[in-house]
Amino acid sequence: MITSTGNQQMKEIVQLQKKSKARCKQRVFVVEGPKMVFEVPKEQLVSLYVSESFLQDPDAEHKLKMLGCSYETVSDSILKSVSDTKTPQGILAIVKMPSYTLGDLYGAFSQTGKEGAAPHLLVLESIQDPGNLGTILRTGEGAGISGILMNRTTVDLFHPKVIRSTMGSIFRVPFYIADDLQAAVRQLKESGIQVYAAHLDGRACYDQMDYRLGCAFLIGNEGNGLTPELASLADAYIRIPMEGNVESLNAAIAAALLMYEVKRQRR
Amino acid sequence: MITSTGNQQMKEIVQLQKKSKARCKQRVFVVEGPKMVFEVPKEQLVSLYVSESFLQDPDAEHKLKMLGCSYETVSDSILKSVSDTKTPQGILAIVKMPSYTLGDLYGAFSQTGKEGAAPHLLVLESIQDPGNLGTILRTGEGAGISGILMNRTTVDLFHPKVIRSTMGSIFRVPFYIADDLQAAVRQLKESGIQVYAAHLDGRACYDQMDYRLGCAFLIGNEGNGLTPELASLADAYIRIPMEGNVESLNAAIAAALLMYEVKRQRR
Repeated sequence: MITSTGNQQMKEIVQLQKKSKARCKQRVFVVEGPKMVFEVPKEQLVSLYVSESFLQDPDAEHKLKMLGCSYETVSDSILKSVSDTKTPQGILAIVKMPSYTLGDLYGAFSQTGKEGAAPHLLVLESIQDPGNLGTILRTGEGAGISGILMNRTTVDLFHPKVIRSTMGSIFRVPFYIADDLQAAVRQLKESGIQVYAAHLDGRACYDQMDYRLGCAFLIGNEGNGLTPELASLADAYIRIPMEGNVESLNAAIAAALLMYEVKRQRR
Repeated sequence: MITSTGNQQMKEIVQLQKKSKARCKQRVFVVEGPKMVFEVPKEQLVSLYVSESFLQDPDAEHKLKMLGCSYETVSDSILKSVSDTKTPQGILAIVKMPSYTLGDLYGAFSQTGKEGAAPHLLVLESIQDPGNLGTILRTGEGAGISGILMNRTTVDLFHPKVIRSTMGSIFRVPFYIADDLQAAVRQLKESGIQVYAAHLDGRACYDQMDYRLGCAFLIGNEGNGLTPELASLADAYIRIPMEGNVESLNAAIAAALLMYEVKRQRR
């Protein structure tokens, strides 16, 4: 049993929790809590740590066997010290990052059982709030999107808070982090995907367009919206109507309304 | 100029930031940052504090005059020490809590210029995340709701994080905090308002109901959903369809989809 913060594996977990660079270099990230750990695809599971208390649950051994991965026991206090949450839930995994090409997001959808379905993409430009990014993935899975593109100045997708707020969608929603987001959007357009910018200058109401064919939505930074350079690539600007003195909606809320409008039209 | 954390007013601000009880007792709360402070209705402004740096902006004096309230200057470091944010924006106000009756939320809408409009309400049961509650108010104003009801175990509406994420909607969206939420919902029903529960057991898809007449939506706690007692008061259970392995949507996202569906139908 691991009982010291000096343990090499514990030190590594702390680095992976805190540092984007450490995660990037090793291409792994940390997942906490039984709900999410039991959703990790087997082939992505690298290592598994459980607390003494967790093992006292009569179902624990059985559940851990299902994961098909050996585990290390850690004292409750040490697991707490390497956890990113205030109330850790006794189980933590190191997990390989999934990897997709841009083509995976809008090409054949056999992976998701949606072969032949029209692509439905989200393009995020410099979203900063981890909760927003995680919630967008979670909602996106619910709305049946085919994938999410983002630029490198979007908050790190593998930040512990992002992972937590995806509620497991991180394992299932294809994503692509573009070095050049404008080039990626041009590639979508060349593939026949209609690109819409959620924009305060939009004239068309978001529910007055036809989204039954391939479509992608550009969503901008929380404070500043889309850069003119990216917005100019859109085939149309659309807006979500707002009453009162509201200047804009939260980015995750705007994305949700657009994604569910697509879903509504395609039902 | 205030230059000490020992100053009585600074001590009071710290209490108001940290303690729900202090806010409740005095019926005031703290608002930070120019965007929100300049939206405070004049009659609610109790006192105003600005940092030395803030006053160096050439427009500052003019803007402060518009507020029609005298202000105290505070050294930058002291304002930072009483701020709830990491990067305070140099202006902070103590503001009187608005107060509404339950009838205000669904009765005459002359206040909001919506006289005669059908009520459109949200009923929140024990929402715990401050960001969710603030975002729900912000989105609610955008969707044109007539008001929000909540129970006492919902996170404090005047918590600094809630206030921040309302982006000013706290000053404009009528709310009612019920000692007995079930009794309040019964009162809505007696007034002819249709009550819908957002519920995983819902059979009807949320966009298949007619919301053009008075309606209210019950939204449950993030982890546990609605209590059976409150849910049983609903005229109908509705569900938001979800693909993939998504078990539920974030509470603010679910509320947004419902509120904007009402708006779509009423346009």
